[in-house]
Amino acid sequence: MSLTISIDAMGGDYGPEVTIPASLDCLKSNPDLKLILVGDEAVLKPQLARALIDYRDRLSIQHASQCVGMDESPSKALKNKKDSSMRVAINLVHDGRADACVSAGNTGALMATARFVLKMIPGIDRPAIISTLPSINGHTHVLDLGANVDCTAEHLFQFAVMGSELVKAVENIDNPRVGLLNIGEEDVKGNEQVKSAAKLLENSPLNYIGYVEGDSLNAGHIQVDLIVADGFVGNVALKSIEGAAKMIGTALKEAFGKNAVTKLAGLLAYPVLKSFKNRIDPRLYNGASFLGLRGLVIKSHGGADVLAFKTAVHLAEVEVKKDVIRKISEQVEKTLALRENA
Amino acid sequence: MSLTISIDAMGGDYGPEVTIPASLDCLKSNPDLKLILVGDEAVLKPQLARALIDYRDRLSIQHASQCVGMDESPSKALKNKKDSSMRVAINLVHDGRADACVSAGNTGALMATARFVLKMIPGIDRPAIISTLPSINGHTHVLDLGANVDCTAEHLFQFAVMGSELVKAVENIDNPRVGLLNIGEEDVKGNEQVKSAAKLLENSPLNYIGYVEGDSLNAGHIQVDLIVADGFVGNVALKSIEGAAKMIGTALKEAFGKNAVTKLAGLLAYPVLKSFKNRIDPRLYNGASFLGLRGLVIKSHGGADVLAFKTAVHLAEVEVKKDVIRKISEQVEKTLALRENA
Repeated sequence: MSLTISIDAMGGDYGPEVTIPASLDCLKSNPDLKLILVGDEAVLKPQLARALIDYRDRLSIQHASQCVGMDESPSKALKNKKDSSMRVAINLVHDGRADACVSAGNTGALMATARFVLKMIPGIDRPAIISTLPSINGHTHVLDLGANVDCTAEHLFQFAVMGSELVKAVENIDNPRVGLLNIGEEDVKGNEQVKSAAKLLENSPLNYIGYVEGDSLNAGHIQVDLIVADGFVGNVALKSIEGAAKMIGTALKEAFGKNAVTKLAGLLAYPVLKSFKNRIDPRLYNGASFLGLRGLVIKSHGGADVLAFKTAVHLAEVEVKKDVIRKISEQVEKTLALRENA
Repeated sequence: MSLTISIDAMGGDYGPEVTIPASLDCLKSNPDLKLILVGDEAVLKPQLARALIDYRDRLSIQHASQCVGMDESPSKALKNKKDSSMRVAINLVHDGRADACVSAGNTGALMATARFVLKMIPGIDRPAIISTLPSINGHTHVLDLGANVDCTAEHLFQFAVMGSELVKAVENIDNPRVGLLNIGEEDVKGNEQVKSAAKLLENSPLNYIGYVEGDSLNAGHIQVDLIVADGFVGNVALKSIEGAAKMIGTALKEAFGKNAVTKLAGLLAYPVLKSFKNRIDPRLYNGASFLGLRGLVIKSHGGADVLAFKTAVHLAEVEVKKDVIRKISEQVEKTLALRENA
């Protein structure tokens, strides 16, 4: 099955320096993959001269004259950057010329543009950002990671319906275990938002397992496939984890870098430390999907390097193959019908 | 200066097994310290026979016939356990017989009991839990860690006033930098709660530096002394960090435990790994203070071992010496007066 992905080649902290080598690696490893690199032709063409011959049927450039800055306001980008690499890449999905789009650009602008161009799935009020975190026994899917603040219980419920369907498709499991992020596992714990969402989830066909705490994102004693949270809480949790990992990594480096003896120990332990690092390498978890839209948009971390950006493109490939958007739309429709008949 | 601390000797997952040796270590290391161990005399007395002679002027037992279970509901504990070790330990603070109380017991019950017995500082609506997290450059104070959910902007502001005063006293700094936990640093980011709190903080005499993100708890690029958050968000962040640390620790152990070669590397790197572990040892950050009460109550982690419990007792010693409760009360009064005159 051939699949086409549009790449915002100018997005992210490094732009083409990262997106081009990553794209070429992806083309090399998947012969079914077609890529459309979107951006300034004058910049992209010289760098792709050889590749455009090598992959003549699978690689093309789509010119876009503008770029959205990493700190630009989403509303301004939406209004003034109608020919941005980000916008044109999303247009390709809208027009059916691409099955998904990947961008490392400004998250807010990407979300606003995607929502404006692709529109929402009927029955979903707000799009949500879902991604995967490494955990002791594998990994955990989490949403929302920051698209929404001040969510209602109904929003959290919608996130759970969409997230569960994505996990089902991507992980090939029948009934993903859905947990609600809270500050305790007991019924009495939590704020009003979470308590009301729990009621909606208990009365739904989802495999709702109850409240989980923050440690369940990486290492909880409760087995859970999907964790649902308000975007404010989910984003703080995600960034707290990033900060903790950074601090621990720094402390480890400092300990091994202290003096000649510790450096020697580090040298001897190098292969072990490397295998440890690979196990929890955040680059292997790069890529977040925007759920709730009528098209597939994958957001890569802005600071992604080649490996990380490849991971995000690979995520897009998987979600296209698994037909995630169609499945989510159908599930949302089914859920709405169930409610109307209830 | 002599100081007296009451210890809930029965609290926590391990009770006297941990609280007794920790208490004796504390008495040994600080000749100015007096401890009152509260709990079942029949259990405590035999274990303290020798110590009651050695420290005859500094150690005593206060009998309490009941214990609060770790999973007991706070309201039931408050109603039915009037002679619990926790309650009696707090009563000693209320009666002026102790300057502070330390407990590793049920957090909810401890908070409810402390609030009931000690009462709130006038002008403070809700008590908050503050603790310290290790960071790349030292450590960060954070509140609220879970006493409150559904906070208003005014609550967050009150937390900031109290927390700033505590940091000032404990760290000996004049103007602690206060950050508000948010999902971005730009003004437009955040939920209604945080945006309104930011306005209150901007117009206050506090050294408010703006929004900080979750990674600032451990490793942000912004230098901050105190981070203020809603208890729901703060608790999720804290537990997310605990989960991340646990996962990373497990991955490190697994990498070194894989086979004979990696085990040898681990042996050679042992002193380095140990110094790394000490640097971020959560036991050295154990102890959270309940702010907003008219007395000092320190909560130790329920699973604390002897070292961790000693850290919590030491925190109580510092806060008593620094006269934290009086300073916070005065600061709250001053802030209220400023407002009335504004």
